[in-house]
Amino acid sequence: MDPEIKEEMKIYFAASIRGGRDYARDYKKIISQLSIYGKVLTEHIADNKLNDRGEDISENTIFERDTKWLRESDIIVAEVTQPSLGVGYEIALGESLGKKIVCLFKQQSGNLSAMIKGNRKLEVLEYESVNEIPAKLKQVFQ
Amino acid sequence: MDPEIKEEMKIYFAASIRGGRDYARDYKKIISQLSIYGKVLTEHIADNKLNDRGEDISENTIFERDTKWLRESDIIVAEVTQPSLGVGYEIALGESLGKKIVCLFKQQSGNLSAMIKGNRKLEVLEYESVNEIPAKLKQVFQ
Repeated sequence: MDPEIKEEMKIYFAASIRGGRDYARDYKKIISQLSIYGKVLTEHIADNKLNDRGEDISENTIFERDTKWLRESDIIVAEVTQPSLGVGYEIALGESLGKKIVCLFKQQSGNLSAMIKGNRKLEVLEYESVNEIPAKLKQVFQ
Repeated sequence: MDPEIKEEMKIYFAASIRGGRDYARDYKKIISQLSIYGKVLTEHIADNKLNDRGEDISENTIFERDTKWLRESDIIVAEVTQPSLGVGYEIALGESLGKKIVCLFKQQSGNLSAMIKGNRKLEVLEYESVNEIPAKLKQVFQ
């Protein structure tokens, strides 16, 4: 891929905040990898200070900002290991807007929703360790 | 409401399956109440035998059936206490189709996603006990 195109690509990374922060360290590593390929609009998801109470701004401000970012994005990468209403919502909204959507799911961590796993419009990449993420993302973005 | 209209109303009840079954007993009571007002297309969500591994049919079969039911429905009632990718997905899909959506959230159980709580197109009804559900639903359907 041309480096100039890479720099301009806008990536919406979706992951659980209020659904639970069990995988927050993985989110940080994934965002770091995604940054190689473009601008990650939702970098705050990796913030260590962010807990499951979410950000200290109004819910409507978050909703309006995040859906604006999602509409502007070129691709949505969703970490779907932790069940999350917000991530499910973002995936369906992205699908209705015709966005390319890639879901990352940690194997053996639970049972992935049939609305994700059974949806042929989504690309679901399973992984065992976050160390596999660089190679998985390379396949997506190259 | 006219009894004949009530009989024909199709209600899509959305609630967590693979996200966790902590509130499965409440789902049963909610479905029982919803049945007063119309045909609940997703009655199997209250099945005691249904656990977080989900139904024993292919994910794509579930996805195609559930999204068909959702498209056919007149109203979506979503129980959003348990974080769930599927429920978040169904809410956004319903919104993109212009459906009326009512979310039921058990207070003090956690932090509701900003994508739900901050979304002014959704009606969120909070409750403390499932005993309040009949009165809440009466307000919705009358």
